[in-house]
Formats: sequence, structure tokens, C-alpha cells
Amino acid sequence: MANKIPHRLYLNENEIPKQWYNLRADMKEQPDPMLLPDGTVAQEEHIYPVFCKKLANQEFDSTTRFIDIPDEILSIYKVYRPAPLCRAYDLERTLGTPAKIYYKYEGNNTSGSHKLNSAVAQAYYAKDEGLKGITTETGAGQWGTALAEAAGYFGLDLVVYMVKVSYEQKPFRKAVMETFDAKVIASPSNTTNIGRAILEADPNNSGSLGTAISEAIEVAVTTEGYRYVLGSVLNQVLLHQSIIGLETELAMQKLGEYPDIVIGCAGGGSNLGGLVAPFMRDKITGKSNPRIIAVEPASCPSLTRGKYAYDFCDSGRTTPLAKMYTLGCGFKPSANHAGGLRYHGMSPIMSKLYHDGYMEAVAYEQTAVFEAAKLFAKRETILPAPESAHAIKGAIDEALKCKETGEAKTILFGLSGTGYFDLMAYTQHNEGTMTDYVPTDADLEASFKDLPQVG
Amino acid sequence: MANKIPHRLYLNENEIPKQWYNLRADMKEQPDPMLLPDGTVAQEEHIYPVFCKKLANQEFDSTTRFIDIPDEILSIYKVYRPAPLCRAYDLERTLGTPAKIYYKYEGNNTSGSHKLNSAVAQAYYAKDEGLKGITTETGAGQWGTALAEAAGYFGLDLVVYMVKVSYEQKPFRKAVMETFDAKVIASPSNTTNIGRAILEADPNNSGSLGTAISEAIEVAVTTEGYRYVLGSVLNQVLLHQSIIGLETELAMQKLGEYPDIVIGCAGGGSNLGGLVAPFMRDKITGKSNPRIIAVEPASCPSLTRGKYAYDFCDSGRTTPLAKMYTLGCGFKPSANHAGGLRYHGMSPIMSKLYHDGYMEAVAYEQTAVFEAAKLFAKRETILPAPESAHAIKGAIDEALKCKETGEAKTILFGLSGTGYFDLMAYTQHNEGTMTDYVPTDADLEASFKDLPQVG
Repeated sequence: MANKIPHRLYLNENEIPKQWYNLRADMKEQPDPMLLPDGTVAQEEHIYPVFCKKLANQEFDSTTRFIDIPDEILSIYKVYRPAPLCRAYDLERTLGTPAKIYYKYEGNNTSGSHKLNSAVAQAYYAKDEGLKGITTETGAGQWGTALAEAAGYFGLDLVVYMVKVSYEQKPFRKAVMETFDAKVIASPSNTTNIGRAILEADPNNSGSLGTAISEAIEVAVTTEGYRYVLGSVLNQVLLHQSIIGLETELAMQKLGEYPDIVIGCAGGGSNLGGLVAPFMRDKITGKSNPRIIAVEPASCPSLTRGKYAYDFCDSGRTTPLAKMYTLGCGFKPSANHAGGLRYHGMSPIMSKLYHDGYMEAVAYEQTAVFEAAKLFAKRETILPAPESAHAIKGAIDEALKCKETGEAKTILFGLSGTGYFDLMAYTQHNEGTMTDYVPTDADLEASFKDLPQVG
Repeated sequence: MANKIPHRLYLNENEIPKQWYNLRADMKEQPDPMLLPDGTVAQEEHIYPVFCKKLANQEFDSTTRFIDIPDEILSIYKVYRPAPLCRAYDLERTLGTPAKIYYKYEGNNTSGSHKLNSAVAQAYYAKDEGLKGITTETGAGQWGTALAEAAGYFGLDLVVYMVKVSYEQKPFRKAVMETFDAKVIASPSNTTNIGRAILEADPNNSGSLGTAISEAIEVAVTTEGYRYVLGSVLNQVLLHQSIIGLETELAMQKLGEYPDIVIGCAGGGSNLGGLVAPFMRDKITGKSNPRIIAVEPASCPSLTRGKYAYDFCDSGRTTPLAKMYTLGCGFKPSANHAGGLRYHGMSPIMSKLYHDGYMEAVAYEQTAVFEAAKLFAKRETILPAPESAHAIKGAIDEALKCKETGEAKTILFGLSGTGYFDLMAYTQHNEGTMTDYVPTDADLEASFKDLPQVG
């Protein structure tokens, strides 16, 4: 009973970081630059039609190590943060592992995930620039919900293009977004040129993040007073999400702990990049050498089976090109894939670090991931998001290795969100009807064929 | 920005109370005793066939002021508690009120509500007594989910009778309970004599908490190794929920604060009774004199329009009789009523205190309650349960009175849970299709006719 380390450690409000940390400032080599479709290097002003200026500035800033968090953003962070650092005593006991398992729990807000950290920042900058509205895409719905919350707070209009398969599987995600006054449209839709073209070719297209991005950007650049915002992949998003890692680092310092292994689920890289930022810095600078592991779904395996190449960020092939691990911008995860982590690419920062050997990656099939999720739920009173459950599965596997070797390693993982909106997937798992899907090599080869010939 | 009082105050783990507080020990007059249907006073042993012995003991213990929380329960409390005491700065600013608004947020666990506090206790005692399983009812699903979580933790079988209208409106509640291995049955059902009788008389009966209780008890008393557990109304439940008030009291002490007004939503009284316990003690003993306000739905107005009389605790008229504010055990709230707070009666302890003038009560219609919920969500990043939104509405109204009078009162309310499973109701409100319903005097008179003639 009398554990010196508490089950949940909350920092004090005045310990919430007042600056974001820009990992690029410490990287030995920078990610390759964004390119325009003609192969020339993109400049900051090229993305002004799409993004707010302040955010475009953050996107291109690879040298400022710490960036002040504006007071208006800090004051909202204080409403729902700090997020607790939790010790999974019950899970450790159940596994019989000598490992210490910690997790950073980011699901304690209506959006149910870490996405709110960047949503608040992006909505604030849009409001501060005098914009009328913003557009975005959402897959599983975490990002759309977070942005609806943030836009509602600042009184900005918001149009959300939601991947159709999620829109249909998660009717209540739409309801939450509408509660915060967002307009939610299933993608592909008839409201954009790109959506209409896709539907014409394939009326039953169930959508993809890449397509939803194309539609959201089209609306942003063609509507007066609107800009586009994105919940992952971008450098600016990883910057905002660094608050996860900074809080975790401080909380662990207070406990006299440091992780041997840091595990994050990996879709576009927003949670992963935010969580690992200070630990990756330590690894780059040689201060310490934690293992850093990205866990992705076997059905959308950008790191473990993708190509490190320039690719479009959207399916409509309208964005600049990013050098990243990609499955090809036309890749669509199988419709049986539950939850998020369905993006074809991966954050250029995380891609570069993975490419340079600073990070490992592992892929799991979803039935195994849901097993881990349910075990975790029963021990820790939190129903995890399927996304986050990938990190849980990774942590459990590492803890079980410790059980074999007898090593008392310190494992840290990111519990990026809750599964309240993923209950159709949980129902499938409860009823034994959930299936796995792994793309064949031929599937991927076909998808790689369309990679742009640049860079 | 530099508020001395933080937005969220979390106690340290070692400050979680180690004893529950039994308000009865400080009441000037005790609630009237439970009666058997023949009018004689019930004794502890009369309820042994239904309840675990330790819980029956707590039910009848009106003298022990503090009761130790077993270590096994404390160790689970530490997984999801302490719950934060929050200062609603943003809501205050939006309302333009000089009042200080605090809320105790109990929704930070998978069950999404305070119900887990008693679920863990009751499941523990059942396991400790060597039982194989437990049965219960659930209305909106908070209690069933909490108990599923607790039973799953201790490896107990659990059968949940869920009010049919909620079962149909909230398919995902069932999914969560099943994720924790509970068996969920829509009530009235064909699995019990009482259910079959009700369905024979009215095949379209949409269920009530009273009916679900009858079914759950029937199964408990006729199944070897099973007992029944209940999420509200009972003395034992208020005892367990006192942890809400005790933590709140300590947190307010740390801030140098004391509430002028304490507001709780009122269904069966579990959240209300738990939150107000220490403040009610202060009021009874004359240490201070806060206003204590119960907020109930106008569609199920047991305190504001019910009779203070002996009544059955279930619709099947199988339980002992409790003296309480009741609408009659046959009362069924209109099917358009969203969320919980649909019980025909009210905790005998709370009923007695209300009857003796220690507490006020107010009733609101649900569209106004959802307005308050949405305003709160936009300012505080939490989507409230409809139940809890009654308390929000009460707090907002008191804060607006302060705006008129210029008084800087300290208002405390209980945010008992989140609304992740109430999105059909939010959708109705978003789309403008939500309706109100207030029973007519004739409706209530008809319902009162069946009150038992005892006491």
C-alpha cells in the first residue's frame, strides 16, 4: 500500500511548461526540406495561402530551441492540464513483471486525447490573425473534436472533413463536434472539386485522411478569411505537442526516475513526437541513451514497411512534398481498420530520426492491440483509445521481456487518449468479429508506384 | 494569468481520505427506519438474503462517525483519485459574475462518474465474502459501467438490468460494460417473473429504475452465491460517496475557501449526499451555515413535488419500505427524459434532511439544462453528463443572482460525470428536437394512489 511513488503524479499548475521545445534545434541533421511539386525548395511564404503566418513561421523555424507559449494558450492549458504521469502498479502486478511501467495520460478532456494541445494553439493563432474560420480533416475524430473544442472557445467557424468510414462508425463524434458548433462533412464529399472527382471514379470510396486533407485545403484556400489547420505530421504540431514530453520529463525528475524505454503510438507522429521530444534530445546529445519505440498498426505500416521518399501529404496531390516514410499518398488502410493511425505518411522529423537510427519501430495487428487495451482497462480504470492501445501493447511486450530476463527496466509510454468513441470497435472485439488485415507486398508496391519522381 | 488559486487542485495521493464519513452520526434526528411490508421495523438480518453482510452492517450503522476504508479499496481509489477541485474561471468571466465558482470533477475514470467510488467498495465486500457474482440495475448506465469496472477488477460475475429506454438510446454503454465482461439485459426482460409480468401487461413498457431493481433483486435472491448491489439511495452508498465531500472539504481548506452555496444534482442522492456530507455536518452542528441545494429534473421531481412517505424502493414492490420523498414506486419518467435522475424516490437520509429544512431543492426542464451543459463545455473543456448539468444550471443561476446583487459568493457544485454516453441527447439538443415534459398534478396524484398504507 505505502508506495513512495504515487499512482498518479500531477504537477502543480505553475509547473506547466511556459515554452514549447523545438527538437529540430538539437538535431544533428535536419529533415530534408519541403519541396514544391516542381522540385524546388518551398519557402515560408509559399504556404501562407494555406496556413496562418505565425504557424507557417513555426513550421520553418528549425533553430529556435524554445518558443514562448502565448498567455492566452497557457490559460486554456491550465483548464485541462497538467496531465498526470501514472504508475501502472496494477498492470505490473498482473503481468508479474519486475519492470516499472509509467504512462502519461492525455485523455482527460472532452476531445479525449492529446490533440487539444495543438488545437488550442492553432485556433488561437488563427483568431489572433483575425481569421473568420478554419478547415481541417479528421480520421477517427480525435483531432476534429479537439479542434471543435478550441474553435468553440475562440469563436471561430470550423469545417471538419471526416473520413467517411469513421463518420459512419462514430456517429457520436459528429455529435460532440456539433455541440461545439463545428460543421462536419463526410469525406469524400460533393462540396469540393477533389471530392467530386473521387466520388465520380468510385462512388463507394470510404475515404482516407489524405482525401479529407485535400478537401479541407481546397475549401481553406478558396474561402475568404479561412485557413487550414492540421492535427499531426507537421513540424508545428510536434512543437506544440512537446508539452507532453516536457511535463513527463519534469514529473519523472521529481520521482527520481528516467525511462529506459519510451514508447509511443505512431500515426502521423504528433503524440509520439511530443512525448519523446526531451528524451530524443538526450539521446541526440549523448546525455542518455533510452530506447525509443514507435508502435504502428500492421494495417498501415508507414515506418516498418514504407519508403523514405518525397511524397504528397494528401491524396489529391495538392500539397507541397515532404520527405517522409510513406506508403504512397494513394494508400488507404483496409476498412476493417479501427481507430486512427491511418495516415499514409509520418512526420518528417520522426521519419528523419528513424532513418538515422535514433528510433525503433514495431507494428501490431489490431486484435492483439485490443486484447492489450482490455487488459489495461481492467487494471487501470481507463478505457484506452485504439491508437493509444498500440503503445500499451508495446509496453506490455517490453514488460514481459523484462519478466523473462529479470530486468527491472523503467518503461514509459504515452496514453494519448480514451476510447469512449471507439465502442463499435470494442463491440466487435467483445463479440469476436474483429478481423486483422495486413497489406501484401504487392499492395504496397502498387501504392509506391505513384510516388512523385523528385528529391 | 497569475491566479493564486489554480484552475485544478489535485490533492496528493496520501491525502485521499482513509475513512468514510457517516453523516447519520451527526444528524439531530435519524431517518425513519426501514419497514417490512407488514409494517414492522426491518432488522439487519432481514436484508442478508439481498445484501452482503458487511454492507448490510453499514446500512444499519447510524452511530459510527468514521469507518475505515479497507486497504484493497484504497489501493483502487489511488488509481483514479484524487478527483480535482476546479475553479471555473472561464465560466465566471463569461457570465460576468463576481461569484467564485468551484466544481468537484468526478468523471475522470472509464465509468465517467462518481459511481465508481461505491462500486469498488461494494464489489470488494462481495468478493471478500466469497460470493460468485452480483446483480444490479442501471438507468442511464453510469452505475452499471462503474460496477462492471469494479467487478471486472475483482473477477466477480455481474448481471446488469438496464432500463430499456436507456439500453436503446445508449448502445455503447452496453459495449463498455461488456468490455469489462458484464452481462447486460434490457429491463423489463423475460428473464425474471417480475419482468415477464410487466411485459405481459404492457409489451411496450420502456422500463424504469424501479423495475430493473426488482429484476436484479429477483435474480440475486434466487441464484446461489449471488447478492444484489445498488448504486444510490441507500445509506451505505452515501457513506462510500462521502469521499467526494471529504476530498472537497480538504481541498477548499488548502485554498482558504469555504462554500456559501453547495449544489448537487439529485436522483437517488448518491452524488448529492456524498458531496454535501461534511458541509451538511457543519450546518447541523452549527459550525457554519452554507445553503445546500439539490437540483432535480422537472420530469422526475421527487423532492419538489413528491410526498414524504413510506414507499417501496422498486416497482415490483418486493423491497422493504423506506421513508423518503417519492413520486410513487410506479412512477415512470416520460420517455423523452434524457440521462439519469429518473428514480421515483430519494435517499432516506437526504429526504429527512430536506424535510427538516437543512436543504433546498429546485427542478429544471431539460432543454435549459442542456443549454447550461453546452455553455459549460465550451468554457471548461469537459462535456458534462446530463445529470451533472443540472448542478451546472443551478450554479449558473446562483452566479447570475450574484451578478445582480454584486455579491462575490463562493459557489461549489458537483460535476459528477461526463456525457460521452449521452450524445444522442446532445444530438437532439443540437438539432432542436429535444422536448421538455413536466408531469401534471393529475399524473402525480394517480401515482401517489398506490403508496403503501403503513408508517
